Amino acid sequence: MKNFMDKDFLLTTETAKKLYHEHAEKMPIIDYHCHLQPKEIFEDKKFRNLAEVWLGAGDRYGDHYKWRALRARGYEEDSISGPDDDYKKYSQFVESMPYFVGNPLYHWSHLEMQRYFGINKVINAKNAKEIWEEANKKLETLTAREMMYKFNVKTVCTTDDPVDSLEWHKKMMEDNTLNVTVRPAFRPDKAINVELSWFADWVNTLAKVVGYEIKTLNDLTKALAERIEFFHSMGSRVSDHALDVVHYAPATYDEANAVFLKGMNHENVSSAEQDLYKGYILLFLGKEYKKHGWVQQYHIGALRNNSKTMLEKFGPDTGFDAIEDENYMEKLSALLGALDQADSLPKTILYNLNPRDNYALTILAGCFQKEGHKSYVQVGTAWWFLDQQDGMRQNLETLMQVGLVSQSVGMLTDSRSFLAYPRHEYYRRLLCEMLGNLVESGQYPAEELDTLGQIVEDICYNNAKEFFGF
Amino acid sequence: MKNFMDKDFLLTTETAKKLYHEHAEKMPIIDYHCHLQPKEIFEDKKFRNLAEVWLGAGDRYGDHYKWRALRARGYEEDSISGPDDDYKKYSQFVESMPYFVGNPLYHWSHLEMQRYFGINKVINAKNAKEIWEEANKKLETLTAREMMYKFNVKTVCTTDDPVDSLEWHKKMMEDNTLNVTVRPAFRPDKAINVELSWFADWVNTLAKVVGYEIKTLNDLTKALAERIEFFHSMGSRVSDHALDVVHYAPATYDEANAVFLKGMNHENVSSAEQDLYKGYILLFLGKEYKKHGWVQQYHIGALRNNSKTMLEKFGPDTGFDAIEDENYMEKLSALLGALDQADSLPKTILYNLNPRDNYALTILAGCFQKEGHKSYVQVGTAWWFLDQQDGMRQNLETLMQVGLVSQSVGMLTDSRSFLAYPRHEYYRRLLCEMLGNLVESGQYPAEELDTLGQIVEDICYNNAKEFFGF
Amino acid sequence: MKNFMDKDFLLTTETAKKLYHEHAEKMPIIDYHCHLQPKEIFEDKKFRNLAEVWLGAGDRYGDHYKWRALRARGYEEDSISGPDDDYKKYSQFVESMPYFVGNPLYHWSHLEMQRYFGINKVINAKNAKEIWEEANKKLETLTAREMMYKFNVKTVCTTDDPVDSLEWHKKMMEDNTLNVTVRPAFRPDKAINVELSWFADWVNTLAKVVGYEIKTLNDLTKALAERIEFFHSMGSRVSDHALDVVHYAPATYDEANAVFLKGMNHENVSSAEQDLYKGYILLFLGKEYKKHGWVQQYHIGALRNNSKTMLEKFGPDTGFDAIEDENYMEKLSALLGALDQADSLPKTILYNLNPRDNYALTILAGCFQKEGHKSYVQVGTAWWFLDQQDGMRQNLETLMQVGLVSQSVGMLTDSRSFLAYPRHEYYRRLLCEMLGNLVESGQYPAEELDTLGQIVEDICYNNAKEFFGF
Repeated sequence: MKNFMDKDFLLTTETAKKLYHEHAEKMPIIDYHCHLQPKEIFEDKKFRNLAEVWLGAGDRYGDHYKWRALRARGYEEDSISGPDDDYKKYSQFVESMPYFVGNPLYHWSHLEMQRYFGINKVINAKNAKEIWEEANKKLETLTAREMMYKFNVKTVCTTDDPVDSLEWHKKMMEDNTLNVTVRPAFRPDKAINVELSWFADWVNTLAKVVGYEIKTLNDLTKALAERIEFFHSMGSRVSDHALDVVHYAPATYDEANAVFLKGMNHENVSSAEQDLYKGYILLFLGKEYKKHGWVQQYHIGALRNNSKTMLEKFGPDTGFDAIEDENYMEKLSALLGALDQADSLPKTILYNLNPRDNYALTILAGCFQKEGHKSYVQVGTAWWFLDQQDGMRQNLETLMQVGLVSQSVGMLTDSRSFLAYPRHEYYRRLLCEMLGNLVESGQYPAEELDTLGQIVEDICYNNAKEFFGF
Repeated sequence: MKNFMDKDFLLTTETAKKLYHEHAEKMPIIDYHCHLQPKEIFEDKKFRNLAEVWLGAGDRYGDHYKWRALRARGYEEDSISGPDDDYKKYSQFVESMPYFVGNPLYHWSHLEMQRYFGINKVINAKNAKEIWEEANKKLETLTAREMMYKFNVKTVCTTDDPVDSLEWHKKMMEDNTLNVTVRPAFRPDKAINVELSWFADWVNTLAKVVGYEIKTLNDLTKALAERIEFFHSMGSRVSDHALDVVHYAPATYDEANAVFLKGMNHENVSSAEQDLYKGYILLFLGKEYKKHGWVQQYHIGALRNNSKTMLEKFGPDTGFDAIEDENYMEKLSALLGALDQADSLPKTILYNLNPRDNYALTILAGCFQKEGHKSYVQVGTAWWFLDQQDGMRQNLETLMQVGLVSQSVGMLTDSRSFLAYPRHEYYRRLLCEMLGNLVESGQYPAEELDTLGQIVEDICYNNAKEFFGF
Repeated sequence: MKNFMDKDFLLTTETAKKLYHEHAEKMPIIDYHCHLQPKEIFEDKKFRNLAEVWLGAGDRYGDHYKWRALRARGYEEDSISGPDDDYKKYSQFVESMPYFVGNPLYHWSHLEMQRYFGINKVINAKNAKEIWEEANKKLETLTAREMMYKFNVKTVCTTDDPVDSLEWHKKMMEDNTLNVTVRPAFRPDKAINVELSWFADWVNTLAKVVGYEIKTLNDLTKALAERIEFFHSMGSRVSDHALDVVHYAPATYDEANAVFLKGMNHENVSSAEQDLYKGYILLFLGKEYKKHGWVQQYHIGALRNNSKTMLEKFGPDTGFDAIEDENYMEKLSALLGALDQADSLPKTILYNLNPRDNYALTILAGCFQKEGHKSYVQVGTAWWFLDQQDGMRQNLETLMQVGLVSQSVGMLTDSRSFLAYPRHEYYRRLLCEMLGNLVESGQYPAEELDTLGQIVEDICYNNAKEFFGF
């Protein structure tokens, strides 16, 4: 029996251990997609206790993964995401821990205790009090920045609205005491989702930001180009799109502008009209990104706000999202093809939320490579609900079989939490275990072990550094 | 090399063996969804020989799994599901056994011989005669009820039409000699499938049962509510729906009633009209179920009657069904959301027949939890074609990664056969093997082994008892 | 640690080794679906060097798998599929080899070196020069035919257009020195794809071949029937269809003929019209195939020509295809059902390119079995992008769980290359490993090992021989 979550956690062979401890472990982290609050990094946030940093501050903004598990346990919402007492929340979570058997929360939570707090206890009701006290003591000095330093985080990219002033990023650029590079990422979903009720309001906000009226689609693209320019000047090198459903159809300016005007007038926009508008604007943005040498990310396939009851109570992004099962390969192929033909296809990372699409998406990415670039279009690491052992294994296995794992830009947290960095470690361990198995089972030669070590280091850090140009 | 199917079948580690032999093995069975004939239980059916109990009585009603395998072998239909000689049927099956390598039939059949008949021989042509004689001798006393007692079956839920008189259930309620609780389950598919040719006839049968004419949808829902009341009085606590394709759209009474009237008039009902009618009636039924504290089951994704030739010869449900590949997450989300918003969402178990939807469905279920309940909406165990090692493993793995396996209500047979209970054993062994692996590989601490044993017992029995309120 | 790719490559247990070395290894090969050039077989092509035979002749016709990997590496297209120097191409490929870790190319390439050339070196930059020289020397005598003999290839089926004169097949039939049976296969895609720009031209070419005008659909089916007759006389026993998307609807002759005429007039043909025309003609062809005792193959789910840029440069089939994600079970069920009802369903092999459909397709196949035949309709081996370890394992696992692997017709190369036969070995090793694991883990009895050895031999050779009637 292997020891519980010791230094060789998830590593079962000598080769895997060697790859991890001699290569993966020492590499810094580039967290090129996350949802940290820039303000909290700048202010070097201190947390009042373990409940706040682990479970959220009671303001309905926190860790969905944990909330969903606690809801399945049947606890009251107020003691999950709401205003209830911190220790009550903490206790429920800790008492539930043994019942999370098989769930990534079990491992993440223990890694969080081990790596940030140096607490190697099993998390359960019996140890609850001790862990609470020990961790809270550590939190007196374990600030947001310290958490990042502990994991050797070199660069993080936050996720930012085009209308954002990036004031905190500006402050951080001027802060010599900050040892992490914090870059904004450009997330223009609100400019794209012409069918949503808040579209026109958002466009008007953008108009204020750029200082002129936005009456046509040409005005909008002009404004977006300016914001890209501004983001670029603030260090941004990457954009991010939530394509819950992929919309694309070839469109003339007039066709797309007509849809834009409907959106501005709060008229209903059909799915076919979304194809026209979104296709047009994604082509435009791709061209701008490419011009600036950016990487674009498409996150495909979320099915959001499934519980209308909870949407009305707490708003979006509080843990009631799921996975879309729409078919999208034809439209995505047409979109990437159109970008390519217009010489407007930037480096691109595709993420699928429905694991049933792993193979189709990875293979489609392989149709859009570019001379002089390694894996110009590639599929990203297992995302959101798939960010767990089975999801990662399937993602990596697919990448190995029909892509080139050696050129992957590797892991990201996609997280709101400063406690999420052990997920990089988790990914690295799985990666080393899988690569190690190839050697141990006679599928890759031991005499190439140095190269394989280098490949591990590349996937952990170097590939991302080169791909994003950080 | 492990011994062939001995007491540690499917169990490879000490922890797995401990979990199985000290916890899982001793738990009684609640078979909350099956297709046993109530009459056969009441009458304590005796079987004329092994062919009848194993392969069917020659009346085209029997074990599809075996029939499908025999058809693939190329035997004549009359010697599979038809009137041919029992020993001929038996011989073909036994001679084919070695060619079922890798198929669950191989394991099920051997478990059936071992557990019911105490026969530990390898099933093949050489042993055919001996097995036949030995088993037939046992069948002199091994009646339907004895088969259930052998497996410590506490409760079974049969599957019953709303128009059913439940006469056999009534007799069983009054039979002191019966040591199994047999409950009816409410399966109102015929009230819902307004597009099928027999809809109007069925409604008219229901009218006779309730004693008044059914001329409007209000009449129908009134009659269904009465039947639910009646079923409840007869011990029913669970309903069952075959949603081959998920239909749902918000509908007013008038809209739904208009579709109802078309169905009664044998007019064509479009898919969009089905959305209206089925959405309406599923909302109504959900409300009734919730009022009575019932659990509802949605079985999603069968593609039925693929061979029209065989449908014309033998009718439905004779082994020519397959898996639908429609996308349904948006509609199912809307249906569950509407039930939830109307405070009409009962406890629900969702079953998918297409394994490609495991992740999407399990995650969607997680969006509809309720305070005070453990996994109020949950995904059921691998169903029908997926009720085998690979299907179960994927189902359990998904449940672990994005749900809470510790709160699963566990296994059911969904079977027409009294010989199906070893599938509970099969499931339990796989479950213990998977949980055992977590401990053995250092992913779950050995010091929580008592809790893990308790979790195993919960999944095998206690969770179902609590969830269904049996 | 296992040795790198030695004689027990992929075989980890004694049973697996026994099954492979005593059974699988010795069986001849029937490669019932490939894309070899008949002319090259007849002329016993000699290759100028390792680059030509491994990577293509620089004429944009060659091995897609390798090209895709090299494109992902970022090399210039001219040095991948184009006119650049052979040694440059070779060097790039060899230097890239370590970065193909986890990809089937790594194994295929090494097997190719080992089996054809007797070179057991690790392929990398260090060994590049030596391998080049040693292999080129071998190529002086290692001709196309010799490559086939090395692998004990008994029969190959090429893929041929109905208008093909089969001149090379004729020559081969008369060539006593050829020790491989080379049969044509009938691939009438161009007769079926009525929506494509080249449909009318192709029909007119067919008209010239048969010697009369083709003005109606009746003329076309008459001509196709004649070509089937001709192909049959030339040894053809199998057809092949690329159903990228499955089209089917019941159609009268007049309905189908109307679509045919639109195609001939270069008018747009809608998807619903394709359903009518393609349904009609597939029914017709099925009937003809059945009459001749042929096997038909449906290859379902390619999404082709994703990069329009590369399509314009190099035309189709140059490595820019991917996987379709359309849902097709209902239409395929209706098509097979209609063939069956018209007594026109020939033996059929179904191939899915999207692995998410493995279960649905395998189960659908099981609905169309025939008395007197073993697995009359069956799912073929993992195809194209799925022809790798993970794809094969999933394909075999599915076949085991819901089909009968013992009756599978086994592996085919689907390849343009004479170097592709190690894929049969790869498949056989995986098969023996999987079957061996069943025995080693107590899931299949050791006392049936002789039968299991026979089953292995059947899957490797005998089943195909019987199924195709070769």
